[in-house]
Amino acid sequence: MPYGYEEWPKLSLESFKLGRELNLRSIKVGSINYDFEPSNIVITGMGGSGIVGDIVRDSLWGHNIIIHKDFNIPKWVDSRSLVVAVSYSGETLETICGALDALRRGVPVVGVTTGGRLASELEGRGAPVVKVPKAIAPRFGLPNLLYAVLGLLSHYLTIPEIDESISVQGDALRSELPGRLASFLKGYVPMIFAPIGLQAVAYRFKNDLNENSKTPAVVAIVPEADHNDIVAVMLKHPVKYIIIRGRTDDVHDYLMRAVEEVVKNYSSDVEVVELKGSSRLSQEVYGSMLLGLVSVKLAELYGIDPVRTDPINTLKEKIRGINCPSN
Amino acid sequence: MPYGYEEWPKLSLESFKLGRELNLRSIKVGSINYDFEPSNIVITGMGGSGIVGDIVRDSLWGHNIIIHKDFNIPKWVDSRSLVVAVSYSGETLETICGALDALRRGVPVVGVTTGGRLASELEGRGAPVVKVPKAIAPRFGLPNLLYAVLGLLSHYLTIPEIDESISVQGDALRSELPGRLASFLKGYVPMIFAPIGLQAVAYRFKNDLNENSKTPAVVAIVPEADHNDIVAVMLKHPVKYIIIRGRTDDVHDYLMRAVEEVVKNYSSDVEVVELKGSSRLSQEVYGSMLLGLVSVKLAELYGIDPVRTDPINTLKEKIRGINCPSN
Repeated sequence: MPYGYEEWPKLSLESFKLGRELNLRSIKVGSINYDFEPSNIVITGMGGSGIVGDIVRDSLWGHNIIIHKDFNIPKWVDSRSLVVAVSYSGETLETICGALDALRRGVPVVGVTTGGRLASELEGRGAPVVKVPKAIAPRFGLPNLLYAVLGLLSHYLTIPEIDESISVQGDALRSELPGRLASFLKGYVPMIFAPIGLQAVAYRFKNDLNENSKTPAVVAIVPEADHNDIVAVMLKHPVKYIIIRGRTDDVHDYLMRAVEEVVKNYSSDVEVVELKGSSRLSQEVYGSMLLGLVSVKLAELYGIDPVRTDPINTLKEKIRGINCPSN
Repeated sequence: MPYGYEEWPKLSLESFKLGRELNLRSIKVGSINYDFEPSNIVITGMGGSGIVGDIVRDSLWGHNIIIHKDFNIPKWVDSRSLVVAVSYSGETLETICGALDALRRGVPVVGVTTGGRLASELEGRGAPVVKVPKAIAPRFGLPNLLYAVLGLLSHYLTIPEIDESISVQGDALRSELPGRLASFLKGYVPMIFAPIGLQAVAYRFKNDLNENSKTPAVVAIVPEADHNDIVAVMLKHPVKYIIIRGRTDDVHDYLMRAVEEVVKNYSSDVEVVELKGSSRLSQEVYGSMLLGLVSVKLAELYGIDPVRTDPINTLKEKIRGINCPSN
């Protein structure tokens, strides 16, 4: 299996250490003090870097963690927040604008990146940056970014057990599901149902289907999807259904089984993906890896290169020259 | 045109007044005081009621407005927040759990509903409720819920001009786009691109496609979609593209034109919907009405009843007996 998936366990451990070993609370940037109890944590980033925020929010469920996928950061964010700016390349304009905007406004910012302009701009101002190892493309460097952020956040919050989330990666690598699921999805638009507490797995799968398999996909989050998306099963469409089944709490687990029943009542084009691991973090890492492998297999079936993402390059070229929007 | 769309202008004005006329700041529920400056506003609700929160957040862009589509409310919400609980029927278990959980925790809660258990539980505790007029189904009662919430929030925030958002409704009603767009979409999965500041229009359209047309749909929000969804245009799929073009700020407007160019470079199955109105509120109300009409026309083309949503009834039946999850 190429694309570096087999390196994930090693990279996860290494990257967690990189974040953990940064002595974050001792840092001061002018009047900005990093030794505080944040009232919320804003994780900003786009695409393969931005999904890290989604996984962290689900993994640290119950904390006030805000995902921001846009330029700048919200107007109401102030010095009681901690901003974590994640950009694999360090060249993501949206994220650079956000990080610099936040620092200017007196908000503590930490960068997580392989280098680039984000690293140099933050370091030039004395702000902390964790530099993570490189991968074939941002999305294939998920453990590098994710575990570095968890390491950083361990200075402020209790992080779930890291070991199990690494050991389940081996199970995902050895699974035979990816080949079967790829054949199942070929030629169709995947419609992915997941519970709200594990929603990052569904969005990560969608993103991997988009980028690796050049395939659009619908994400339907339960319980909200029970009030709209679920109705679409009444007609036959060129879609295939994936149900992501995990363990969150009794009510949501019950609802997901009900959704599965309803979808199966209307369609036989349904596959269930059972997540492994006891914590939300483990389940999300397992699901991200397993379903990432599905997207790579699907690309193979379509005879296309998972790594090439031409339309993104075109769009990046178009925004290179523009200025950050004013707040 | 049935389904009550022609009543929207009248209902909008009436419902705004209902919210405005509630003397919210004078209310006290035990030790809970409604005369304060909320540090954030949590709008909780599901489906056709929940989308109200999305529209309000976009319309009052820059304020800390949190959309919550789940049971209970987040653990970190406290008495500095205002919770607005929106349930058309008043019987939505998720929203009832959230409203009562919030009140128990000393958070000011206002209900917006046609009645039901939400109204009686809140009123029984002395908490304020705005009772809005009924419609054929929750989604067709959008102005009733939306403008009542705006009226309520006018006690705390500056609300954009209401008049224009009502006058554009006439333009949507007279448009010939709905028939053409419905024919365009028949047999395909719609993929809807919209800028982040007008994202509620895209989600509302998706929800209406789900419920009225029994059709799944993909929502792709720019700039995030520039990093993943956009790649899917590289292969031919059973999808048709809708670009929602509006006015937010220079950077996002520029990016949306770039997205439109890229999609059109790869596919000729693209339709652009230009929103009318100068404020975000006007554009969202215009878009919600125009695209709602598309979904009703598409249902006609499929020969199905827009009002029936059998799978939702099945799911509601299944959760009727369960208890709210513990926090």
